[in-house]
Amino acid sequence: MALATAETTPALDFGPAVALSCRECGTRYDLGPIFACAECFGPLEVAYSWTAPAAAEATVTREQIESGPTNIWRYRGLLPVPGDVASRPNLAPGWTKLVKADNLARELGLRSLHVKDDSGNPTHSFKDRVVAIALEAARNFGFRTLSCSSTGNLAGAVAAAAARAGLDSCVFIPSNLEEAKIVMASVYGGRLVGIEGTYDDVNRFCSELIGDPLGDKWGFVNVNLRPYYAEGSKTLAFEIAEQLGWRVPDQIVIPVASGSQLTKIDKGFKELIRLGLVEDRPYKIFGAQAQGCSPVSTAFKAGHDIVRPVKPDTIAKSLAIGNPADGPYVLDIARRTGGAVEDVTDAEVVDAIRLLARTEGVFAETAGGVTVGVLRKLVANGLLDPEAETVVLNTGDGLKTLDAVSAEARPTAVIRPSLDAFRTAVADNS
Amino acid sequence: MALATAETTPALDFGPAVALSCRECGTRYDLGPIFACAECFGPLEVAYSWTAPAAAEATVTREQIESGPTNIWRYRGLLPVPGDVASRPNLAPGWTKLVKADNLARELGLRSLHVKDDSGNPTHSFKDRVVAIALEAARNFGFRTLSCSSTGNLAGAVAAAAARAGLDSCVFIPSNLEEAKIVMASVYGGRLVGIEGTYDDVNRFCSELIGDPLGDKWGFVNVNLRPYYAEGSKTLAFEIAEQLGWRVPDQIVIPVASGSQLTKIDKGFKELIRLGLVEDRPYKIFGAQAQGCSPVSTAFKAGHDIVRPVKPDTIAKSLAIGNPADGPYVLDIARRTGGAVEDVTDAEVVDAIRLLARTEGVFAETAGGVTVGVLRKLVANGLLDPEAETVVLNTGDGLKTLDAVSAEARPTAVIRPSLDAFRTAVADNS
Repeated sequence: MALATAETTPALDFGPAVALSCRECGTRYDLGPIFACAECFGPLEVAYSWTAPAAAEATVTREQIESGPTNIWRYRGLLPVPGDVASRPNLAPGWTKLVKADNLARELGLRSLHVKDDSGNPTHSFKDRVVAIALEAARNFGFRTLSCSSTGNLAGAVAAAAARAGLDSCVFIPSNLEEAKIVMASVYGGRLVGIEGTYDDVNRFCSELIGDPLGDKWGFVNVNLRPYYAEGSKTLAFEIAEQLGWRVPDQIVIPVASGSQLTKIDKGFKELIRLGLVEDRPYKIFGAQAQGCSPVSTAFKAGHDIVRPVKPDTIAKSLAIGNPADGPYVLDIARRTGGAVEDVTDAEVVDAIRLLARTEGVFAETAGGVTVGVLRKLVANGLLDPEAETVVLNTGDGLKTLDAVSAEARPTAVIRPSLDAFRTAVADNS
Repeated sequence: MALATAETTPALDFGPAVALSCRECGTRYDLGPIFACAECFGPLEVAYSWTAPAAAEATVTREQIESGPTNIWRYRGLLPVPGDVASRPNLAPGWTKLVKADNLARELGLRSLHVKDDSGNPTHSFKDRVVAIALEAARNFGFRTLSCSSTGNLAGAVAAAAARAGLDSCVFIPSNLEEAKIVMASVYGGRLVGIEGTYDDVNRFCSELIGDPLGDKWGFVNVNLRPYYAEGSKTLAFEIAEQLGWRVPDQIVIPVASGSQLTKIDKGFKELIRLGLVEDRPYKIFGAQAQGCSPVSTAFKAGHDIVRPVKPDTIAKSLAIGNPADGPYVLDIARRTGGAVEDVTDAEVVDAIRLLARTEGVFAETAGGVTVGVLRKLVANGLLDPEAETVVLNTGDGLKTLDAVSAEARPTAVIRPSLDAFRTAVADNS
């Protein structure tokens, strides 16, 4: 299959990536800005040289990784990026903290718990990981404008990455997003377009735009660059395993929006096992949704294989995808690994944000409230083993969803600057 | 000098720290929760074992540091903390990015520029560094409550660190702070008290409280723990030098609130030189203030040695200290190193925030707008050498001061999800 942009990009450099491969039927394609199989419409995934026996000498080792930079580029040998990616202008995300959460573990009755806290990324969400990979693909294909449909975090990540890389950007969001996400997506100087509708409306609009002369020369990170973009989520799996001392955790709780992140974390664990970087042990993957947008959780509980779209209504706006593209794969993975998909109410989301903040000093976005809330629920309903090594993801930052907690997170007292006033206030509160 | 808390803390462990020493008269004191010299009322600083010849074998090497964790504890041998500090529950701040800012350098006409971006810290400001050191001192002295007066960032850092360490907290802020800082300081579950007044009023109140039975058993990180706390800012100097390849930059632009950070970065560079970890080369230190609170800049320009207090009126609230404790030291250092202290208007602060975001994808707090704005001004007025290696600090996060840019950082357009609507909007904007 010839590349449409081959004339303008004579020397593609995707490092160890060698092809795109259909997840459904296995048909292979040359690396290009395509995302769906021409045979069966299945999603395309990146395939690597280290799956071929001839490339054994180039296989990645722990030592190579450990001597790399403290960001996702330490895993460049496992990603579709050129070897010199670390020296190119990008946001260098990743290597976020894996917080040993003993206080939270105690409250929940767990023996061993870590929080993978992706609020430490440059624009304070895990989206910096996926965008960094998509950016390299956009450069390879000669795109000068970076674009996306976004529930908010992706918009900021794309706008920031484009600014630093010297590309234009034009990002699309539902117009009713949180103020912090709107300001952040705009401040980097690219174009920001609010769409009157849900994220699913925005997504449909972008699919139209990519077929129109207005948008057909753009790199939509989560549409025509999606196979590359999605690979970025594997770095969460790589980091968690390395930070645990090269070990896959027994069980992990992951938020589900489109479902892409969860499927790629599973892919990441499998690649580590296949390359002999970690021991081949079973692990369980749990998906977390907000009740107001829980099509995958609903299907899981009903034993269905297909996911029925819903109209989202939840404070967890970054997870508010009513028609999740990778929903069926999430169901597969949760069932295959012995995990589950569960959901929590908005009130439980707020409680969980405050619980995580109070116990570990980590201020999570609503999406982090969803995962911690689901973690608590999974312990309560016995689906999660309290004795097993557990990891829960916080994929975003509380500063972006202040409204979720601002009614309750208020000053204990407001007083004049005098000891008497303080004494009275303390007495009032004791 | 005996410690008041000696009965409850039989085994103080401050690692390489051996005493407190008066910055003015040199009188030495046992390590304790004290901050002013009993002889001359000068500020006390931490003194270390590696200043004594007998301790030569314990001197810190580059190799020791480089093999340490990717946070400030890699420098534990240069800080007043126990050797096992990395394994204790704390926020493990630091090792934030030193961003090679080629785009910004080009716009400003500089040859070599880096942004030290401390928005990557756990609570997204440099304050996590100083609090982490103060926390260890509080543990050493047996304090069960952590407290502070704060312009906002410190409040969140103290509340988060106390939550993770299992200590109580009670933090004091001016009641008119930014919403994001109020919510963040409250969400970790400690007590948050708003004071009707300026930061200087809050600070005076805390000095009273520490002499009252209500507060005399508390660890005020920036009052009775200040000598330890202040040492945390040295880690900015250590990281910058190490990230430049073990080299002190030619010139650096640092924000000035109390002035403590600037003086300790200077101390950090001097310690690296003294220990032979970097070459002994001259460097210039520049201080940055907002015009609405520029007592140190005013004194610098007038050639004065004393700093006359002002009543702050600026959007850079995290720098709004009208009576800066270390102001005279800032003047000394700027003059001794051949630097300067400069100030910019609030409008220049907003412009600089947007400039940094647009060129490097870094969304800074107003304090970062102050330093970048001052950097631009120093280039324009010839005080800064455009050929020399330059570092500018961003000490906080744009998400905490959204109001500064929210009027201008808006969507380009808000449209229905249709190509026609987009075509019209694009035409309108082209």
